Amino acid sequence: MYIGKVTGKVVCTVKNELLQGMSMVLVELLGSGESTKKGLLVAVDTIGCGEGNIVIVAGGGAARLIGGCQNAPIDLAVIGIVDHQIQQI
Amino acid sequence: MYIGKVTGKVVCTVKNELLQGMSMVLVELLGSGESTKKGLLVAVDTIGCGEGNIVIVAGGGAARLIGGCQNAPIDLAVIGIVDHQIQQI
Amino acid sequence: MYIGKVTGKVVCTVKNELLQGMSMVLVELLGSGESTKKGLLVAVDTIGCGEGNIVIVAGGGAARLIGGCQNAPIDLAVIGIVDHQIQQI
Amino acid sequence: MYIGKVTGKVVCTVKNELLQGMSMVLVELLGSGESTKKGLLVAVDTIGCGEGNIVIVAGGGAARLIGGCQNAPIDLAVIGIVDHQIQQI
Amino acid sequence: MYIGKVTGKVVCTVKNELLQGMSMVLVELLGSGESTKKGLLVAVDTIGCGEGNIVIVAGGGAARLIGGCQNAPIDLAVIGIVDHQIQQI
Repeated sequence: MYIGKVTGKVVCTVKNELLQGMSMVLVELLGSGESTKKGLLVAVDTIGCGEGNIVIVAGGGAARLIGGCQNAPIDLAVIGIVDHQIQQI
Repeated sequence: MYIGKVTGKVVCTVKNELLQGMSMVLVELLGSGESTKKGLLVAVDTIGCGEGNIVIVAGGGAARLIGGCQNAPIDLAVIGIVDHQIQQI
Repeated sequence: MYIGKVTGKVVCTVKNELLQGMSMVLVELLGSGESTKKGLLVAVDTIGCGEGNIVIVAGGGAARLIGGCQNAPIDLAVIGIVDHQIQQI
Repeated sequence: MYIGKVTGKVVCTVKNELLQGMSMVLVELLGSGESTKKGLLVAVDTIGCGEGNIVIVAGGGAARLIGGCQNAPIDLAVIGIVDHQIQQI
Repeated sequence: MYIGKVTGKVVCTVKNELLQGMSMVLVELLGSGESTKKGLLVAVDTIGCGEGNIVIVAGGGAARLIGGCQNAPIDLAVIGIVDHQIQQI
C-alpha cells in the first residue's frame, strides 16, 4: 500500500454503470517530489476521507475487497486514514 | 486509477480474436511531464470517449470488469469521462 | 496496454515446462527515451509478430487470456500488431 | 518481491473493518536512492518484524496469501526477515 | 516478463511458513542503468539457476503458476534461463 494525501474529488457524469454512487477522490502520493510525477491517482473512498487527509491506498484486486465493490472496474481504494501523529513523516 | 487524456485511436488488423469489435484508444497520463515517459498507453473504451477527453482509466483485472470483456486479454480500460470543471487540474 | 516494438526473439533451453513451444519476443516500449530504461521486456506471441513490428502488449492476468496459456507462468503477451498508419506516433 | 527496511509503524483509527488487528509497517525499498522516491510503502506484517529489520515484501494478490488475510483489502505484506549476513548488500 | 541477472541468494530464517524450502535469488534487471534503481528484486527459483545466469522472471499471479507454489505469498519467479547467444543484448 502507499501513503498519500487526498487533494480533491473527481466527478464523472459519463461513467461505467458499476461506478454509480461511488465516491472517488484524487490522491497525491507522499514521500518524494518524484511521486507527484506518476500521474494523477484516483481512489474509491468508502470510509469518508476528506481533502487534506493522509490516507493509505491499496491497489489492484485489493481495491475490490473494501466491501460493496467486488465486481466494479476499480483498481485503487482508500483503506485507512493515518492518525495525526504519523502525518509528519 | 489514473487520469489521462485521450489522444487518438489504435487500429490493429492482426490481433487476438477476443479483441474483435473493441474500441481501443491511446491515453496520455496527466499530472506531470514525467508521465508521458511511461510509454504509450492503450485502453479499451466502452463508454464512448473521444479525442481530447479527460478520462479515468483502471488497470489490471479491473479492466475486465467493465462489461463484455471478462475473458479478453486486456489490462486497461476507460471507466469514466471527467466532468469539465475538474479538467483544469 | 502498452505499445512497443519487437526487437528480437528470446530462446531458453532451460525453462519452466509450461513454456514449452511458446514463442517469446523482446519488446521495447515506445513513447519516450525513458521507456527503454525499464529493463528488457519479454512477451509471449501467439499472433505471429516479427522483428520491427509495432505491437500492443497486455500484462498481468490478461497475458494468460490470449488462448492456450491459462496456467502458464507468463505476465506479458502480444495481443495485436498496430496498423501501418499509426506507427509514426 | 522487493527487499526493504522497516522504518516504523502506521496507525489508523479510521480504517476498513477488515484491517482490524493487523500490524502495518512502513517499508523503504533498498537498492538505490531512487527507490525512496516511489512514495511511502505500507506492508502488513504477520511475522513480527521490527524497526530496522531488512525484509522481503510481496505485492499484489501474494500479500493476501500470508494467512488470515485472504479477503482483506491489502496489496503488500512482509514475508521474511533477511538474515544478517546478507544485509550489507 | 523481464530479463535480469542472478546476483546471489537470499536467506531468511524468519519467514512465512509457506516459503519453507523455496530457493530465493536476487535478480538485477538488465537493459539500463536505470533498472538497478528499482530496488532489490527477489525471485523464487525452481529451475536451478545460478549466480551470473541471465534469466527471465515473471511477476504477479504468474509467479504462483511455476508449480508447487500456488498458494505461496510470492510475486516473482524465474521461469527460464536465457541461452548464451542472446546474453550479449
